[in-house]
Amino acid sequence: MNPPKTDARRHHDPDVRGFASDNYAGAHPEVLAALALANGGHQVAYGEDAYTENLQQIVRGHFGATAEAFPVFNGTGANVVALQAVTDRWGAVICAESAHINVDECGAPERVGGLKLLTVPTPDGKLTPELIDRQAYGWDDEHRAMPQVVSITQSTELGTLYTPAEIRAICEHAHAHGMTVHLDGSRIANAAASLDVPMRTFTNAAGVDLLSLGGTKNGAVFGEAVVVINPDAVRHMKHLRKLSMQLASKMRFVSVQLEALLAKDLWLRNARHSNEMAQRLAEGVRAVHGVEILYPVQANAVFAQLPHDVAERLQKKFRFYFWDEAAGVVRWMCSFDTREDDVDAFVAALKEEMAC
Amino acid sequence: MNPPKTDARRHHDPDVRGFASDNYAGAHPEVLAALALANGGHQVAYGEDAYTENLQQIVRGHFGATAEAFPVFNGTGANVVALQAVTDRWGAVICAESAHINVDECGAPERVGGLKLLTVPTPDGKLTPELIDRQAYGWDDEHRAMPQVVSITQSTELGTLYTPAEIRAICEHAHAHGMTVHLDGSRIANAAASLDVPMRTFTNAAGVDLLSLGGTKNGAVFGEAVVVINPDAVRHMKHLRKLSMQLASKMRFVSVQLEALLAKDLWLRNARHSNEMAQRLAEGVRAVHGVEILYPVQANAVFAQLPHDVAERLQKKFRFYFWDEAAGVVRWMCSFDTREDDVDAFVAALKEEMAC
Amino acid sequence: MNPPKTDARRHHDPDVRGFASDNYAGAHPEVLAALALANGGHQVAYGEDAYTENLQQIVRGHFGATAEAFPVFNGTGANVVALQAVTDRWGAVICAESAHINVDECGAPERVGGLKLLTVPTPDGKLTPELIDRQAYGWDDEHRAMPQVVSITQSTELGTLYTPAEIRAICEHAHAHGMTVHLDGSRIANAAASLDVPMRTFTNAAGVDLLSLGGTKNGAVFGEAVVVINPDAVRHMKHLRKLSMQLASKMRFVSVQLEALLAKDLWLRNARHSNEMAQRLAEGVRAVHGVEILYPVQANAVFAQLPHDVAERLQKKFRFYFWDEAAGVVRWMCSFDTREDDVDAFVAALKEEMAC
Amino acid sequence: MNPPKTDARRHHDPDVRGFASDNYAGAHPEVLAALALANGGHQVAYGEDAYTENLQQIVRGHFGATAEAFPVFNGTGANVVALQAVTDRWGAVICAESAHINVDECGAPERVGGLKLLTVPTPDGKLTPELIDRQAYGWDDEHRAMPQVVSITQSTELGTLYTPAEIRAICEHAHAHGMTVHLDGSRIANAAASLDVPMRTFTNAAGVDLLSLGGTKNGAVFGEAVVVINPDAVRHMKHLRKLSMQLASKMRFVSVQLEALLAKDLWLRNARHSNEMAQRLAEGVRAVHGVEILYPVQANAVFAQLPHDVAERLQKKFRFYFWDEAAGVVRWMCSFDTREDDVDAFVAALKEEMAC
Repeated sequence: MNPPKTDARRHHDPDVRGFASDNYAGAHPEVLAALALANGGHQVAYGEDAYTENLQQIVRGHFGATAEAFPVFNGTGANVVALQAVTDRWGAVICAESAHINVDECGAPERVGGLKLLTVPTPDGKLTPELIDRQAYGWDDEHRAMPQVVSITQSTELGTLYTPAEIRAICEHAHAHGMTVHLDGSRIANAAASLDVPMRTFTNAAGVDLLSLGGTKNGAVFGEAVVVINPDAVRHMKHLRKLSMQLASKMRFVSVQLEALLAKDLWLRNARHSNEMAQRLAEGVRAVHGVEILYPVQANAVFAQLPHDVAERLQKKFRFYFWDEAAGVVRWMCSFDTREDDVDAFVAALKEEMAC
Repeated sequence: MNPPKTDARRHHDPDVRGFASDNYAGAHPEVLAALALANGGHQVAYGEDAYTENLQQIVRGHFGATAEAFPVFNGTGANVVALQAVTDRWGAVICAESAHINVDECGAPERVGGLKLLTVPTPDGKLTPELIDRQAYGWDDEHRAMPQVVSITQSTELGTLYTPAEIRAICEHAHAHGMTVHLDGSRIANAAASLDVPMRTFTNAAGVDLLSLGGTKNGAVFGEAVVVINPDAVRHMKHLRKLSMQLASKMRFVSVQLEALLAKDLWLRNARHSNEMAQRLAEGVRAVHGVEILYPVQANAVFAQLPHDVAERLQKKFRFYFWDEAAGVVRWMCSFDTREDDVDAFVAALKEEMAC
Repeated sequence: MNPPKTDARRHHDPDVRGFASDNYAGAHPEVLAALALANGGHQVAYGEDAYTENLQQIVRGHFGATAEAFPVFNGTGANVVALQAVTDRWGAVICAESAHINVDECGAPERVGGLKLLTVPTPDGKLTPELIDRQAYGWDDEHRAMPQVVSITQSTELGTLYTPAEIRAICEHAHAHGMTVHLDGSRIANAAASLDVPMRTFTNAAGVDLLSLGGTKNGAVFGEAVVVINPDAVRHMKHLRKLSMQLASKMRFVSVQLEALLAKDLWLRNARHSNEMAQRLAEGVRAVHGVEILYPVQANAVFAQLPHDVAERLQKKFRFYFWDEAAGVVRWMCSFDTREDDVDAFVAALKEEMAC
Repeated sequence: MNPPKTDARRHHDPDVRGFASDNYAGAHPEVLAALALANGGHQVAYGEDAYTENLQQIVRGHFGATAEAFPVFNGTGANVVALQAVTDRWGAVICAESAHINVDECGAPERVGGLKLLTVPTPDGKLTPELIDRQAYGWDDEHRAMPQVVSITQSTELGTLYTPAEIRAICEHAHAHGMTVHLDGSRIANAAASLDVPMRTFTNAAGVDLLSLGGTKNGAVFGEAVVVINPDAVRHMKHLRKLSMQLASKMRFVSVQLEALLAKDLWLRNARHSNEMAQRLAEGVRAVHGVEILYPVQANAVFAQLPHDVAERLQKKFRFYFWDEAAGVVRWMCSFDTREDDVDAFVAALKEEMAC
């Protein structure tokens, strides 16, 4: 079969993969196929299309009858729209110091949302009621931005997981103080796959009020959604999404990708696979003397400490990032398209470099 | 041939088209094909991929050797990122009252960019040096947000066009006052097609400093770019795009769509076709007694005034919007996928309703 | 009596006055005396002092039992704090094109408040229900910042006045559309003096929800207050004032100035006097052939049109501003300390220059 | 002598003082006298008056020939205006976790300035080059708000001081990384008095680029100034001050207060006195068994740890705040009007309560 006609050309080798990020992967072929399905003819723009409507049912299947999905472009957008929806102009967000909203969004929560982040250092990227209490005070003190929401990440930026019970404790604590709970679910699929529970077990059932639902790292071309679980806690998503520049005109193409992932089990297949690859990688690495794995490997990330020169030589063969270069800490991410061969070759190369 | 596997299903009739918006159309099949081409394997995220690199050459082909393209998600994003890049915190933007940035972006320029818009009423959506002067003063007056940029739209929100000479006069005027010029080119392809000149004729050659280059309305799934023509006038796009939440992680998929459109002539074919359909529509409408066309039909939009009840009956058959409901003014947009049959059927229905 | 000791020296001639602005005047001696009264000893900072507490009673005397005053530093601060208190992040403010918030605050409403101003041209600085309707629509349209508040100025920037009935009509109209009404009362005393009614007649009784109460132009050293009349319409002033950087630490000194003005009739005496001086000035000017007074002189401002060269020569003797230099329009402001002699000398000089 | 006439009344006991805050004190009588001196006649508003002009000379006397003072209303305003002047829209500020801008400004730097604060925990409120390095990286990384300025406080929120050499080291380090240095000098007078050096020794001579110069806590009614030392590092204060709502119309009254403080030695007398009172207090406290002083007492603050119930009983007699209630830590502030008797009575009461 001839490839369909296009003036674009291929500029890369589709057989090269690395361990730098689950964002380095492309899209799952079933997601691309979904785009074609949604194409053709006219659909109302800006979210009043049949695909976005259908997505609501799918999302309610995952997150209960009150859930509503607001597709957006990217993860930073999802987070900042969601956090604005649960804060006043004087609101603050309690989060882990390592949270994506704190370290990887170029100050968008502050600049676009006017939000103050009240950060807490954590050993493993996870908040607890006790850690939250280090910032949860002073609601009546006008000199302090008012803590109105706790934002947690599942799975965390360090590849660790909250148990459903841990999230429930956080939500109860936050709610007892009149705060809402936001879950940054950029990798929520990996968490559900690893915990082997439905996503609602650690969101709805645990008391989470709204979440950022990741699509991109799960195999989409692009696309996330803010999912509101508790509509009573949330104000007027509609205008917020638009003024935050996250309203897609041809939204059918975001929604159909999320449909391709979430309608059946593609989201889970992709997440399981990347998790398994991370386990395989961790297992391989553990057998290499001199390399230390730093956090529990609970999702699709492996953090390790190894000699700096080894890491640098390895980077010439496989793409990955230093997490803390001074400390010799690296992050290896697996994605839906990582293959067993990739992992094995990587471990072999690591062994070889360590032996030098 | 069987369609590729996906859990998503088709929820719409791909044979129904209307005249509501060029955003209601889907994507051109050649753009979808480009997505497949860019898929597979790993590419550096956030713009350091081969597709974004290649796009630079294509964009330089259109906009000269100094041009640099910064792919973003949507038109509002392109505009607000671009305008921030040419203003200080105290800057203001002179624009037509009818400009998209003023009437259709939910205050994002103000909220996200902190920008004051200094608007001028226009008869046809077009600024002139004289109209600009109604707001171009007081640079030294701290009580007034400082006019630092003039933003024009080509083709305008009213379907009209600036000639290259008109834009040149605006740019000379703006530059003489130390202001830069931004062009909102959400429909720049339609303008170039209608003027029958390269895009650079009314951008670079006319003195435009930077522009928002539209992809979505030209046939993309999603995707626009800020194109910087005059780097001396522009500050640090890189962080601005990120903090404005317009940085795509899998940017290869934005860039390859723009490649599909711009590498050869798909952008022009699509624009020419939608313009021709608008001409065919205007011609048909002119023959209908009692319907008045309001502005020169120079791109892909037709604005008309007709009896309110006729418009309402017609809306039951074809989707389109009132522009000014009280005045009985409607907007009919053609897109790259509008067919001659669509136009003819629409005109026939209009005739029929007018005859009732 | 020797003046009290200070290392500061006098750098100006206290006998020179002009017609440039009521901000050019100093403070009324009774206000200065009040500062001394409030001095000494310790008082709780940030508004929990006895003077701010006492001010509440005074303000309730003027604006009814529900009124609450939030002292702030200046007029721009009062306006931007007040408008934030009655808008959501996606809110917009309908106001006259000539409003201070639109033309004289360097974009602070947009930059600090993230507010979109929906402006309407007016012949005399005054909105009407009909004029409001030019911007009051589209509450459900996420592409448009949501009109949530109407802001009017009393007396207006053009020295004109709303009657209580006119304000009532505006408030009824705004409320019927779910909008609140803010009154910029930077010169509210002049309005009350001119209308010869209590301030509550055209605020509370007319339906105004909150207002900026001017002190500075009325004879204070500095100091204004946001007065909330309808607490149900207003959200959480407390943190808003602080984050808008308008919370005075030694607030007793703001409050006692407002007490000096408002406890009895100093506010009214000052306003009446400046109004009378404007009337005297207008009368004198009307007798000068070739000078045209442009708006009804209803407060303490006189706008006039006269030959440009005459204005320039006159400016060498008396300080005042062009309002529209191209049109030869000037603004002459009277203040609480303007003297009959000042006016008479000014009119005489005007006559002389017109005769040249 | 009869007090001057005013409708305001005295609502407090001018003989009661406490240890809650140097903001609880009123104004120094010489400052009040200066207000009277500047009153009368007309002066150009918004800073073009003779007092603000004269202030420039005084400030240059303190901070060198390049110094320029921009009077503002309050400390938060001074800080947020200053920090905006040395950052781009994507800029971040490195500061101590305990900095006023981080903990006491209700998120104004984030909300008004769009600034990301990159905070560092410190043992004593003081940054060092090493501590700065924990946040000083990633200038080229668009995912991270760009560190553009280091903000230090002198004296610190914990009553400690930087030596001139320590500030010089910080400035050299910051400048070497292309960052500017801001000094929050809300209590700069106390620092100079304690170090017994001119203010310029630890600002200009140490490399500080701009500072917030405190007047309020030093004995003013209200009023601070941003002082720009290095104009090359700073962008356009003029519009920034206005849009940040910190531009006083009757600025002569801010400037003349700063003149009263700074023209000769009132600033120093006031600061020395409050420092001495803190020393006297610390000495007294050290003699009380069971009360521990926590930080070096280098300015006008004493932090102490004592039994919670003792602190609570003491608060019934003297006003002061818990700093960390759970830990039993309190803050006792001395001000320009604290008397030896106040201190002695306080120490006596503390002794008495500890003995209970």
